[in-house]
Amino acid sequence: MIQTDIAIIGAGPVGLFAVFEAGLLKMRCHLIDYLPQIGGQLSEIYPKKPIYDIPGYPSVLAQELIDNLKEQIQPFHPSFTLGERIETLEKRGEADFLLKTNMGTEIEAKAVVIAGGLGCFEPRKPAVEGLDEFENGKGVNYMILEPEHFRNKRMVLAGGGDSALDWTIHLANIAERVTLVHRSESFRGAPDSVNKVMQLAEEGKIDLILNTNLTQVHGNGHLHSVSMQDAKTKEEQTIETDYLIPLFGLSPKLGPIEGWNLNIDKNAIEVNTEDYSTNIQGIWAIGDINTYKNKLKLILCGFHEAALMSHSVYKYINPGVKYTMKYTTVNGIAEF
Amino acid sequence: MIQTDIAIIGAGPVGLFAVFEAGLLKMRCHLIDYLPQIGGQLSEIYPKKPIYDIPGYPSVLAQELIDNLKEQIQPFHPSFTLGERIETLEKRGEADFLLKTNMGTEIEAKAVVIAGGLGCFEPRKPAVEGLDEFENGKGVNYMILEPEHFRNKRMVLAGGGDSALDWTIHLANIAERVTLVHRSESFRGAPDSVNKVMQLAEEGKIDLILNTNLTQVHGNGHLHSVSMQDAKTKEEQTIETDYLIPLFGLSPKLGPIEGWNLNIDKNAIEVNTEDYSTNIQGIWAIGDINTYKNKLKLILCGFHEAALMSHSVYKYINPGVKYTMKYTTVNGIAEF
Ligand SMILES: Cc1cc2nc3c(=O)[nH]c(=O)nc-3n(C[C@H](O)[C@H](O)[C@H](O)COP(=O)(O)OP(=O)(O)OC[C@H]3O[C@@H](n4cnc5c(N)ncnc54)[C@H](O)[C@@H]3O)c2cc1C
Ligand SMILES: Cc1cc2nc3c(=O)[nH]c(=O)nc-3n(C[C@H](O)[C@H](O)[C@H](O)COP(=O)(O)OP(=O)(O)OC[C@H]3O[C@@H](n4cnc5c(N)ncnc54)[C@H](O)[C@@H]3O)c2cc1C
Repeated sequence: MIQTDIAIIGAGPVGLFAVFEAGLLKMRCHLIDYLPQIGGQLSEIYPKKPIYDIPGYPSVLAQELIDNLKEQIQPFHPSFTLGERIETLEKRGEADFLLKTNMGTEIEAKAVVIAGGLGCFEPRKPAVEGLDEFENGKGVNYMILEPEHFRNKRMVLAGGGDSALDWTIHLANIAERVTLVHRSESFRGAPDSVNKVMQLAEEGKIDLILNTNLTQVHGNGHLHSVSMQDAKTKEEQTIETDYLIPLFGLSPKLGPIEGWNLNIDKNAIEVNTEDYSTNIQGIWAIGDINTYKNKLKLILCGFHEAALMSHSVYKYINPGVKYTMKYTTVNGIAEF
Repeated sequence: MIQTDIAIIGAGPVGLFAVFEAGLLKMRCHLIDYLPQIGGQLSEIYPKKPIYDIPGYPSVLAQELIDNLKEQIQPFHPSFTLGERIETLEKRGEADFLLKTNMGTEIEAKAVVIAGGLGCFEPRKPAVEGLDEFENGKGVNYMILEPEHFRNKRMVLAGGGDSALDWTIHLANIAERVTLVHRSESFRGAPDSVNKVMQLAEEGKIDLILNTNLTQVHGNGHLHSVSMQDAKTKEEQTIETDYLIPLFGLSPKLGPIEGWNLNIDKNAIEVNTEDYSTNIQGIWAIGDINTYKNKLKLILCGFHEAALMSHSVYKYINPGVKYTMKYTTVNGIAEF
């Protein structure tokens, strides 16, 4: 059982910065994110793109911002549960919450901060009949958490973006055989990665099947083969494989959060702008996931919300204790 | 007559960042600050100190942050009136304001944003009789706007902090003669600067008078000499000089803002947190100068306030025009 002061759902930029503001007030944080890495939309969708409206940064790459935030919160040693989704949230009493993930991990916290962005990133699934039969450890995965898991296995990857290209390159040396299936002839990913994949195919180190759509999956308890059809010739072929990894991108879904009795308006949680608290005492919502009059879904706004939220959580966890804010420049950072 | 969309009173970090947010919405800004340089408290009080709670900066020197903000707003070419204080603010109609400075500069603006921090920095004045007789261009100055103004003049500087030390060093090569008077034996400034001043005195390039208090000023229309007394021996001496520059630091005063019919609570302007507007339509207040429930006087909070304020000003200046926010990452920065 993980125990913490604040459970932060979502490790995007706003959840990460909340660790810092909470840390200044001597509160410990545990962050949970469904993605295998921290950084939310920035690391998942546009890590290499520049952002121009982070105050004090004329330009900063999205991943660079996340790396800096990671360094900034280091003094407060946050802990993480990654690759798991919070499914249930139970309020057992004031300042007493129990959270559970889809993998059964349990977290006990005095306060809950939802920094869930646009929601959990859910994989876009191809329209292949019976795919769900092999999900959850039976051969079909939509994300790669631990590449070593696939050592000396046969794999079919599907997709035409950076994720499919990057994993093909990475796994070429790990898996017994990698086959990359893509429905079109051209890729959407970085030219460098496209060239690398083409070269691997030429050298016979991977199999590349273009202009082809997945049609069927077969197996008995565990996946053993995948069928596909050439878009032009309509010719069918079936390939034996241990794993099929469709990498067609992730799209965010509010998901389990919808069932927690929070006031929801257009896929976002309504908050009180005095402290970004929700309708349930002990639960706050900050960043893209919250909504209020004139809300702007900007990173810099989430940072402010994290600061005000932290002072409010402090009062909730330490009723009656008076706190005088001190400037970091004057007092420094007290690591713990 | 200066004409602009938004007149921003105060060129501290928050006023500066407001230029960026307004610029994204294609509004032009003119900033006015009483200090001779931009940067507000950061450049005036702690330029060389690290700040630890700017999101995405594990540590940044105050002046470095200001320099970065200056670069960030460059694409929107803000204009500045520095070294002048806004004395009067007149609302002539909706989206029609006239501002005047103590030097008579006039600014016409559609909207007014007060980012005045803790107020105007007013010089701390030594208790010397008749000092005010020689203020305003008659020999006694509390700030140095243009060092060249003092070329080949005789100057008495007074004070023991960084400002007194730095200006003594800088002016040693410009003025005919610099005399630094300090009431104690030790300085509060950076050790480097102290050493440099000691060396200049040893080399006979400046006069250093320690343990001494200013007592009187003399002149006829313009200052011609300053009297002072040794704190231990009580001995008096009088020095002929063209200028006396007491540099005893600046302390902020709300000043003229108090007379503008804004709702004031404990030296701060009350705002509506929906958009940081004041009780007067067309006037907003952001950063340290505003107050609301749970307000934190933090730079990062001022940045958020600047963003929401800008969208609100946009609606005020462009009634009925619909604006859809676009991410800077997606749309870039359209310079103008
Ligand atoms: C292409 C693009 C460009 C952008 N450009 C800019 C820009 O220039 N400037 C700007 O300010 N903003 C920009 N944005 C928006 C910015 O990315 C968001 O405002 C920001 O990511 C919000 O941060 P967050 O921490 O609130 O949420 P997110 O970054 O969305 O992170 C939320 C995290 O919560 C996790 N999560 C949700 N529910 C659960 C659950 N039940 N269990 C476990 N984990 C969960 C998700 O997996 C996700 O990782 C851009 C967005 C995109 C897509
Ligand atoms: C020693 C110290 C350490 C600090 N450390 C931190 C920290 O670690 N983190 C943090 O977030 N904050 C810190 N702060 C606070 C931070 O400096 C302020 O929050 C910040 O400066 C506010 O910015 P601002 O733009 O609102 O106002 P200011 O920086 O105060 O600038 C306001 C400007 O308005 C001008 N002005 C006012 N009235 C008029 C007028 N009528 N006409 C013309 N000009 C006018 C003033 O001259 C001034 O330059 C610290 C402050 C101090 C003093």
